[in-house]
Amino acid sequence: MKTKTKLTKASGFPRSHCPVANTLDLVGDKWSLLVVRDLLRGKTTYGELLDSPERIPTNILADRLRRLEEAGLIVRSAYQEHPVRYAHRLTEKGAELGEILRALVQWGKRHIPGTRTYKESAPGSKPGKPAHRSTRTRAKVGRAG
Amino acid sequence: MKTKTKLTKASGFPRSHCPVANTLDLVGDKWSLLVVRDLLRGKTTYGELLDSPERIPTNILADRLRRLEEAGLIVRSAYQEHPVRYAHRLTEKGAELGEILRALVQWGKRHIPGTRTYKESAPGSKPGKPAHRSTRTRAKVGRAG
Repeated sequence: MKTKTKLTKASGFPRSHCPVANTLDLVGDKWSLLVVRDLLRGKTTYGELLDSPERIPTNILADRLRRLEEAGLIVRSAYQEHPVRYAHRLTEKGAELGEILRALVQWGKRHIPGTRTYKESAPGSKPGKPAHRSTRTRAKVGRAG
Repeated sequence: MKTKTKLTKASGFPRSHCPVANTLDLVGDKWSLLVVRDLLRGKTTYGELLDSPERIPTNILADRLRRLEEAGLIVRSAYQEHPVRYAHRLTEKGAELGEILRALVQWGKRHIPGTRTYKESAPGSKPGKPAHRSTRTRAKVGRAG
């Protein structure tokens, strides 16, 4: 994914004046909205963002954070010096991507069986344990167990 | 973008059980949701889908249509033989991606100045002419018009 997109169109936009196309030019990839999801859930540091089950590669995380910052969707501030470490926070514009995430959650839960949000699976659950409030009812266990 | 994603996780999903991650694995790229947008607007043929202002490359269109079909988001049917040509239509599952598109439209219109949907710009308008029903009111024309 290139950083700077040429404005080749007469419209002054990279591809067209369509709001869908332009929003996808900012966050239309497999990772950006997962980073936004994690920031909405309160993660701020590089280490916290790396520590998600999708295991985002470090170079992709660095690239996406830089792109999100360039687009005004996040701001970063140093929370430590020697070595300097940054906390990342969503701007208001970035936080409003939450509406898109909600639509993705709704569609995924409705159409991809077995998916569940962290909120649904996290509280008190251990790895391998059935999710809290899971809607999965693949097989009914027989009377004899 | 690879066609078959390895199911490397214990969850049985490519990356995690998160509905956002799994939905992005299907349509998280710069083009798929633009194809869905066009299908929602009534386009069906390969030629019609190529003829959008974003100018999707033919190889990418072919790849995305194949992927969308494999995911059960569209169905295709031959509308002509010799040579065979196909019409593409969204399934119910595919059409429900419209909710995600609506969220992208809302966010884009709110945060990327100058973007506008085709509905806002198309009817009766000529290239370069102000959009029909445009909400843009940059300058009021004086009495002498």
